[in-house]
Amino acid sequence: MFEKYPKSLIHLISYLKKLPGVGNKTAERFAFQLLKWKKEQLTELSHILSTIKEDIRHCPECGALMGLPPCPFCQSTHRKSDFLCIVSSPKDVFSMEETKSYQGLYHVIDNLLSPLDGYGHEHLHIDRLKERIKKHQVKEIIIALDSTLEGDATALFLKDELSSLGLPVSRLAFGLPVGSSLEYIDESTLTRAFLGRQIFH
Amino acid sequence: MFEKYPKSLIHLISYLKKLPGVGNKTAERFAFQLLKWKKEQLTELSHILSTIKEDIRHCPECGALMGLPPCPFCQSTHRKSDFLCIVSSPKDVFSMEETKSYQGLYHVIDNLLSPLDGYGHEHLHIDRLKERIKKHQVKEIIIALDSTLEGDATALFLKDELSSLGLPVSRLAFGLPVGSSLEYIDESTLTRAFLGRQIFH
Repeated sequence: MFEKYPKSLIHLISYLKKLPGVGNKTAERFAFQLLKWKKEQLTELSHILSTIKEDIRHCPECGALMGLPPCPFCQSTHRKSDFLCIVSSPKDVFSMEETKSYQGLYHVIDNLLSPLDGYGHEHLHIDRLKERIKKHQVKEIIIALDSTLEGDATALFLKDELSSLGLPVSRLAFGLPVGSSLEYIDESTLTRAFLGRQIFH
Repeated sequence: MFEKYPKSLIHLISYLKKLPGVGNKTAERFAFQLLKWKKEQLTELSHILSTIKEDIRHCPECGALMGLPPCPFCQSTHRKSDFLCIVSSPKDVFSMEETKSYQGLYHVIDNLLSPLDGYGHEHLHIDRLKERIKKHQVKEIIIALDSTLEGDATALFLKDELSSLGLPVSRLAFGLPVGSSLEYIDESTLTRAFLGRQIFH
């Protein structure tokens, strides 16, 4: 079907396919929908895309996303520097914020360890992380990484590297997702939930 | 979570949410992915979006999408004007083409009848359709509309309107989707498949 389309449409579809989880069919749907948009809407979206890289930066200190400086996560007087939470993407910072249960600092590592994809230890910039921990006199390091093979490997590596600082290093708890039914929980999760069981007050 | 994002990011997400089937979460994923794209890729996508409306037009004759004139579906010498296939979106033209079993003309109606959404009979431009049918000396009219409430209503309306021309008006067959298992077929489809059963040669 692809070659039948006009050239610009094929071009648009090929770009939309680069979005996560978007295959041929979905990209086509998106493209045909975009063709239905008003000229002004397309111009506006086009403008946002061409300027977004300048409008949104990574904080050079913590790696989170920010609009105009200063970084709201580094500079706010409301935040406690007793805690440093390590996440693997700027998006995770916003997810943690959404919980409203954390007021400490963040540290975004660009990628989880994944030697096959070319992301080795050197990409974690451990020295810069250690410097920040010392500078802010952090009292607890919280590792909030994905519960995947790469996440586990990275967490383990970070724990080993940071243990020399003599600070408590914690990791997010494993267990049942809230609202879930035991029937649908996989074995590993159930095992972790059981091992991590808490006294019912 | 939404308000926590930098302004341009919120703006971008609000536009991505307008794509079909894209909710908050997916739009956020898309936006964060776009932020990871290279500057040149974003510039290129931005450029396509700002020019797509000029690059791709609706054929004034059949309503299908085309790049530069002439329209490949109206002007090709390989097409037979004995048949006219009525579809409800330019995308459906490409889907029909993909089947490689149709070589006739197309007629794209902009919208299915949906009085509650403000699409009444007048939007079907029946007069223009009848004129085309006469002009091309069409011998069969094929209605290829969705099998939905709106599709059924539109098909019925078109059949009634076009019956005065004295031409055969057909509609796509109903039945089992190819590769489907009877176990998962709904009652209505099974009924239609049974009623429309064909002699097994």
